[in-house]
Amino acid sequence: PERILPTLVETIATALKLPYVALWLPESDSRWEPAAVYGRPGGEQVLIPLLHQNREIGHLAVCPRGPGERFSREDERLLAAIAQLAATTVQAARLSLELQQSRRQIVTSREEERRRLRRDLHDGLGPVLASVALQADTARDLAESDPEAAKAILTSIMDQAQAAVSDVRRLVYNLRPPALDELGLVDALRQFAQTVQGKLTVAIETPEHLPTLPAAVEVAAYHIVREAVNNVVKHAQASHCQVTLAVADEGLHLSVEDDGIGAPDETVSGVGLLSMQERAAELGGRCDIHRLSGGGTRVTAILPLP
Amino acid sequence: PERILPTLVETIATALKLPYVALWLPESDSRWEPAAVYGRPGGEQVLIPLLHQNREIGHLAVCPRGPGERFSREDERLLAAIAQLAATTVQAARLSLELQQSRRQIVTSREEERRRLRRDLHDGLGPVLASVALQADTARDLAESDPEAAKAILTSIMDQAQAAVSDVRRLVYNLRPPALDELGLVDALRQFAQTVQGKLTVAIETPEHLPTLPAAVEVAAYHIVREAVNNVVKHAQASHCQVTLAVADEGLHLSVEDDGIGAPDETVSGVGLLSMQERAAELGGRCDIHRLSGGGTRVTAILPLP
Repeated sequence: PERILPTLVETIATALKLPYVALWLPESDSRWEPAAVYGRPGGEQVLIPLLHQNREIGHLAVCPRGPGERFSREDERLLAAIAQLAATTVQAARLSLELQQSRRQIVTSREEERRRLRRDLHDGLGPVLASVALQADTARDLAESDPEAAKAILTSIMDQAQAAVSDVRRLVYNLRPPALDELGLVDALRQFAQTVQGKLTVAIETPEHLPTLPAAVEVAAYHIVREAVNNVVKHAQASHCQVTLAVADEGLHLSVEDDGIGAPDETVSGVGLLSMQERAAELGGRCDIHRLSGGGTRVTAILPLP
Repeated sequence: PERILPTLVETIATALKLPYVALWLPESDSRWEPAAVYGRPGGEQVLIPLLHQNREIGHLAVCPRGPGERFSREDERLLAAIAQLAATTVQAARLSLELQQSRRQIVTSREEERRRLRRDLHDGLGPVLASVALQADTARDLAESDPEAAKAILTSIMDQAQAAVSDVRRLVYNLRPPALDELGLVDALRQFAQTVQGKLTVAIETPEHLPTLPAAVEVAAYHIVREAVNNVVKHAQASHCQVTLAVADEGLHLSVEDDGIGAPDETVSGVGLLSMQERAAELGGRCDIHRLSGGGTRVTAILPLP
């Protein structure tokens, strides 16, 4: 991605035979900075705004071919066309950068998770188990000669094994929603629906036979539905909510529809929706929110299947 | 990313007031397909190649404004400039798509890993530990009345605890290179260097105090150096290899330099280099290979630190 913008200004300079092209992008709310520069400025600079959805997302600074020269009408027409195209390229470059950062963040936290797990297992559970084996050996030797001592050791073994069971349970719990493995996606969602009963009735409609889903799709589907239903409980003043799961060519379709007053604008663009959209996007899918004409809201998500 | 190419053809059509613009990209070696289309073709189509590094990466198909009309010289100049720019945009779109797929793949395999770990812990280790606790309880009850039975149970506890130790060891081993936690990055690399002794002498130069590195950087550095040194052993016919680690503003710098004959071209672009480059890229870094003027090869990598 770092090469896109330099290539962009170089391409513009070469195509138009311009001595200087610079691309300015907003660095912060108040400050713009040159994101890519080709050549050296000479004479008067002309600024051409880059528009994306009617918003100025940057501008090009260009210099005419010679000092004192001005751009012809044809040049201006060309520059206007090129600015439109450049805006698309700038958006593409920004997207690439965001994707790169998002991937980096995922890899970084995966490795931290692995290191943590490794510690918990290697430095926690491993030594406990080794010590249990050793103590069992000692207790066996003492069983006949000193049954009281053997009994004391056995009590300690029991305690340690039980503590280790709790450790394993905690590790497992943090790995992924336990309900997914214990009940499967659909029943895990039904179990979740129970927890909001009283505040909201949730109907879950699913195909009779859901294919085996990739772990990542299962987790994303589970979280997206939970988040969407939680939003309904919090903001929609709804009495009923319909959750639908279906499998089509594009992947797993989710829909969560309520009969409430519609979410306020700040919720629509809020953290909940963002996190749902991120979970879908990480898998190459998408998540959208629609206001329904009769009031109420529908959240839909598509999670591609391999 | 799916929106970039449709926006591109629409922008070109709007900027040039053309009734039809289609972007064709290679689908496979032998087949090109329209990747984005704006408007409907009418009259004669003109094809404009999109060049990236002198290679045709696609073409634009455009129709003049009216049937029977032709493009003016000004139009042609405009189209040529736009084709150059469009090539940059197409490259940016392709990059975004690749990044998206790479991120998806990482998330998918992370969740599969979590599911596998969850199974190993919850269905494997958990029940064993619970059973050990139960057996210890039984053995305690029998210790006085039936020491022989208690001894048999203790033997079984020992066996199970030892098997569980092996299970934990295997889980831990698969999480990340064990040497990293046991020795730290630098000594893990020294240990690895021992394994190629006889085939190659490896000198490792590092700053006296390496800062604590993120787990992901440690793992990437370890794998990149191993891969690079293994390549030297396999292909370079070198006798000496210098590994250097350094920390600078941009991040952790790695360099692996040998005094051999230089890697053959197919190795340079081979799987080994690709996997090194991917590991660096996942963290927002880079990995390059250079031929040295005196023969030999230098692999460098920069892994950004937070």
